[in-house]
Amino acid sequence: MARSKFPVVGVDIGGTKIIAAVFDGDGAMLSRIYCLTLGSEGPDRVINRISSTISKVIEKAGLKRDQVGCIGIAAAGAIDINRGIVADSPNIPRWQNIPLRDRLLESLGGPLFVLNDANAAALAEHRLGAGRGLNNLIYITVSTGIGGGMIIDGELYQGTDGSAAEIGHMIIKIGGPVCKCGKRGCFEAMASGTAIARLAQKRLRRGEKSIIPGLAHDKVGDVTAQVVAEAARKGDALARAVIEESAGYLGIGVANLVNLMNPQMIIIGGGVSKMGEMILSPTRRSMKANAINLPARTVRLVRPRLGVDAELTGAALYARDMLRMEA
Amino acid sequence: MARSKFPVVGVDIGGTKIIAAVFDGDGAMLSRIYCLTLGSEGPDRVINRISSTISKVIEKAGLKRDQVGCIGIAAAGAIDINRGIVADSPNIPRWQNIPLRDRLLESLGGPLFVLNDANAAALAEHRLGAGRGLNNLIYITVSTGIGGGMIIDGELYQGTDGSAAEIGHMIIKIGGPVCKCGKRGCFEAMASGTAIARLAQKRLRRGEKSIIPGLAHDKVGDVTAQVVAEAARKGDALARAVIEESAGYLGIGVANLVNLMNPQMIIIGGGVSKMGEMILSPTRRSMKANAINLPARTVRLVRPRLGVDAELTGAALYARDMLRMEA
Repeated sequence: MARSKFPVVGVDIGGTKIIAAVFDGDGAMLSRIYCLTLGSEGPDRVINRISSTISKVIEKAGLKRDQVGCIGIAAAGAIDINRGIVADSPNIPRWQNIPLRDRLLESLGGPLFVLNDANAAALAEHRLGAGRGLNNLIYITVSTGIGGGMIIDGELYQGTDGSAAEIGHMIIKIGGPVCKCGKRGCFEAMASGTAIARLAQKRLRRGEKSIIPGLAHDKVGDVTAQVVAEAARKGDALARAVIEESAGYLGIGVANLVNLMNPQMIIIGGGVSKMGEMILSPTRRSMKANAINLPARTVRLVRPRLGVDAELTGAALYARDMLRMEA
Repeated sequence: MARSKFPVVGVDIGGTKIIAAVFDGDGAMLSRIYCLTLGSEGPDRVINRISSTISKVIEKAGLKRDQVGCIGIAAAGAIDINRGIVADSPNIPRWQNIPLRDRLLESLGGPLFVLNDANAAALAEHRLGAGRGLNNLIYITVSTGIGGGMIIDGELYQGTDGSAAEIGHMIIKIGGPVCKCGKRGCFEAMASGTAIARLAQKRLRRGEKSIIPGLAHDKVGDVTAQVVAEAARKGDALARAVIEESAGYLGIGVANLVNLMNPQMIIIGGGVSKMGEMILSPTRRSMKANAINLPARTVRLVRPRLGVDAELTGAALYARDMLRMEA
């Protein structure tokens, strides 16, 4: 059997969970397990947990390590794909310049590839999801932060180092609110789930009336984007206004991407996109008002088709692609 | 002789001038002429002038129309390359939805291709200028407005319709100064030559001391970016502060592109770039302060190698490429 038809492992390293799955040569999932990331225990422990999770998911599939063709790892943040280094990951404490590929090669052996998690999801949505058959698309994930991935001329575009489509820190409001990166007015400081919570908290502290506090045990500091969404679904005017405002900013960031890439489709995923048309409709309106007419008419804004496994599925697809290229 | 080795015509349609040149199969320029655009006379007259300029430049090269393999036309604005339509051009009055290709085909015959002028310049700089041999680069032109072109994996990337890299209307300051497109805080409203002039005029009207008015016949309304540059070279503190501020915004727009595309190089051309290191140094500093570290370390910010003929040269290269693809 050609090595490129061997089963492969895909892994998604998130701030909360590490999820791993084994896929056979036809893409069918053979096994899947997850464990908590527990990033506060430090990078060494997390790396050990990734390694043992991969070993366990291979075992669960009834396979031995040498029966697996390759391993693909999706991680948040700026990834140096040429060296397999996580340059800077915002979701796990002290994940800066982590030589993830080399560390995992020590315990697991190769081939093993690391890529950005939103890039992985973009690849999966292109091959198996909402973007099948398209040439040019952008995948955006809007949750605690904002990440992205790009398909150009039918291929995943990762840029020179592997950090392309780091759209979360695109500055859309010079002098705007402070982002966790330290700069001001980043796309994710304006339009992420965190931004929705911040906008709601600010208006509640001003004394505006809303059912939101009642849904958050009357603690304004505990208000999340999910709580705002819940209140909006119940008709709360403040919650609806906050979502509308945030969607306006989301539409501006999307308009910038539409002007720049003139894509056929933009897929908006992540926790915030689960609000559905409540956030997508005003985002579309804002995009159309803020983008150039020609590309704005062309692009379709849609939700993803794949679920929580998009990242690990994309990581597995990527690893298999890399193996084929090297063959 | 294969048609792809025939001489080709490249044309640059600017707000002020129409320039056309004929190149032989080895890329040597055989003839070059220009005429004024006189856009105020309306689209029909301009289209007739483009047609007659092309006929004349072919004649000047000592050729007949059927000895020319193809014609490439570079024009400002959002271009629908699939239909050869100038969807919206900011530099010539009433140039909206102009079916330029079909109109010129009537008088000149084909093959004839239309593309965005900054895309054409990007192609020329990649093939013959500062970006030779690179895989990924972005060309930016900063003059009255801001335009762009992208090379991805060694090829010109034009997006789905042909309007990719329309970076001038990327919003970098929500609620910022009004752009000529009607929106607020566009990259070109913040960092173009027009923005430099506006910043200087605003501070002069506040009564700040400067040698700038003396260089503009004491008319603040006549102050241009060129005058500000001249004053800065003479050591004028206000002029230097204005250029520093504008370069800060230019660096933020460039940082957004660096985060998004992770390119090897960004070439900054156009009239404003003629200020040289006076504008490039603070732009580089701002880019590094505002981009993610990994791609910021990789990218080089440089000036173009080609001069005023970059656009028409790129148009000729593009037309020849298209002819080869169709062959």
